[in-house]
Amino acid sequence: MSPSGYLRSTARILVSIALFASVGSAHAQTDPLPSWNDAPAKQAIVSFVKATTTQGGAQFVPPADRIATFDQDGTLWVEHPMYSQVMYCLSRVGPLVKDKPELKNVEPFKTVLSGDREAIGKLTMQDLEKILAATLTGMSTDEFQAQVKPWLAEAKDPRWHKPFNELTYQPMKEVLTYLRANGYKTYIVTGGGQDFVRVYADQTYGIPPEQVVGTMGATTYGYDKNGKPMLTKDPKVLLNDNNGGKPEGIHLMIGRRPHAAFGNSPGDQQMLEYTKAGDGARLAMLVFHDDATREYAYGPAKGLPDTKVGTFPQALYDKAQKDGWIVISMKNDWKKIFAFEK
Amino acid sequence: MSPSGYLRSTARILVSIALFASVGSAHAQTDPLPSWNDAPAKQAIVSFVKATTTQGGAQFVPPADRIATFDQDGTLWVEHPMYSQVMYCLSRVGPLVKDKPELKNVEPFKTVLSGDREAIGKLTMQDLEKILAATLTGMSTDEFQAQVKPWLAEAKDPRWHKPFNELTYQPMKEVLTYLRANGYKTYIVTGGGQDFVRVYADQTYGIPPEQVVGTMGATTYGYDKNGKPMLTKDPKVLLNDNNGGKPEGIHLMIGRRPHAAFGNSPGDQQMLEYTKAGDGARLAMLVFHDDATREYAYGPAKGLPDTKVGTFPQALYDKAQKDGWIVISMKNDWKKIFAFEK
Repeated sequence: MSPSGYLRSTARILVSIALFASVGSAHAQTDPLPSWNDAPAKQAIVSFVKATTTQGGAQFVPPADRIATFDQDGTLWVEHPMYSQVMYCLSRVGPLVKDKPELKNVEPFKTVLSGDREAIGKLTMQDLEKILAATLTGMSTDEFQAQVKPWLAEAKDPRWHKPFNELTYQPMKEVLTYLRANGYKTYIVTGGGQDFVRVYADQTYGIPPEQVVGTMGATTYGYDKNGKPMLTKDPKVLLNDNNGGKPEGIHLMIGRRPHAAFGNSPGDQQMLEYTKAGDGARLAMLVFHDDATREYAYGPAKGLPDTKVGTFPQALYDKAQKDGWIVISMKNDWKKIFAFEK
Repeated sequence: MSPSGYLRSTARILVSIALFASVGSAHAQTDPLPSWNDAPAKQAIVSFVKATTTQGGAQFVPPADRIATFDQDGTLWVEHPMYSQVMYCLSRVGPLVKDKPELKNVEPFKTVLSGDREAIGKLTMQDLEKILAATLTGMSTDEFQAQVKPWLAEAKDPRWHKPFNELTYQPMKEVLTYLRANGYKTYIVTGGGQDFVRVYADQTYGIPPEQVVGTMGATTYGYDKNGKPMLTKDPKVLLNDNNGGKPEGIHLMIGRRPHAAFGNSPGDQQMLEYTKAGDGARLAMLVFHDDATREYAYGPAKGLPDTKVGTFPQALYDKAQKDGWIVISMKNDWKKIFAFEK
């Protein structure tokens, strides 16, 4: 066979393989969101992805602009009875007092050490801030990572007695995977500490450190006793990544407006507004915790109990209806909440 | 042919194609750094890339950890006689005074409007800060972008009379491309304004907004007169991305330690230290401006003139020698400095 004949015949065979492969994959195509009921919320996600990734379509979004942002607590994983990061900080008070015995009889550390749940539950926001500052700052960034990792591996939540990173919502993990498979860069945009969430975001959600936007603390560059460079975590907040801080954090860290944003509480409202204010197809969704049997039910929207952690007020529900944001009912939209469910 | 026979024969042909293609590409393989002389600096870059990307090698770096950071002014593009961003800010004083005529007779704006180069050259750092604050903040992030874009298209540098983004160093652009082709994520880490550099970084260097780390200003979320969400640029610096601020900015924005870092002045020293303090293969390089004919020559290292913009002190030169950082001589290492050279 002449070289050009070889190439022609190779080309024909490659075309056959391509056709064969595409037929094969069409047959093998599976539902990207199997934990979702076939209802409007699921349809909205699928329509959005199709509209923004169909080349030549009116709502096509170039791959570089495909940004999707996700709140974490209550959106990607359980936030009740208390944010996991607060549980972490309380767990660190013991080791902290071992290092600094002078704190043993000082409030609020004394109350935390007592183990008296009722008394701990009554700590004020100021007390909590003292605990957060004492357990999240003052160490090097490397030491901090080394403190969080074993906690993640060992700590269990009080209801299911499972590690926190098993209490992630399977339907939302499917959304992350589905968006990434369609060229979206997925970001966490959380009120939680940026350094804290980065420790486990890759392993838990497939989201690398540079795609975690959180409440940002200052660090100071310096040298350890051997002259090795280090960064020390300061008790100074650079940006509180809640409410208006979410779009501010998105601008700071990403520099682009998201095309899709997911949240579950008033702290996410401005992120969803900012997302929807862009041109073309934009998706804004809120997770509504209305399933006390499989997870928790809290509002006060729709007459559900008002709780202190991660509320969903009626005003937010009404705004969602008015502005075309989609409310995800955990009870009705999700076939399965956790991967460990039967 | 039976289906399995078809598959076997297809497999054989695919193997042949693969072999054929690899032979082809070996023949076609071209020098990734054609503007570099074959000297130690070039060899260090190539060795580093080979060591960190050879699967199974002792210094192999997983793709997710391949982070390379580049200072901009004096490292990727010309910084003399004055940083481009300062030129931009001076150019904005006219339009600013049109909007706010009350500034016309107020210093330092009056001096800038006079066009008296000598007087402008004598402005103090405080004067300059007033000009920067007045021209870089107070507007929405969208307005700011709309102000920078036409300037970039129209402004010319005073020596070559070319747009600033043609005054990028061809050898460094080759390094960016070479690193990216080998799975590295390339970041700009600049003392310049993060929002300013983001306007042109993608077009100029192929670096998207989320990979530009710069001096960070606060923004405030709010609504325009039609109720549309907007972010306003505040005159408050969140992080000064110079000296120790560079590793702090890297931690904040990337959350990983770079494996390679490139700079040209004392403001880059801590970034290079931080990079080199990591395990395994780490590359630290400094561009030394020693070519007055093709670009500029300034030190005071090696007896070159001491200038006010982007200095290279002898102490930095000595530290580089001591710590295994590689000094790139523009005169001796670069065959070509600009793409427009013959």
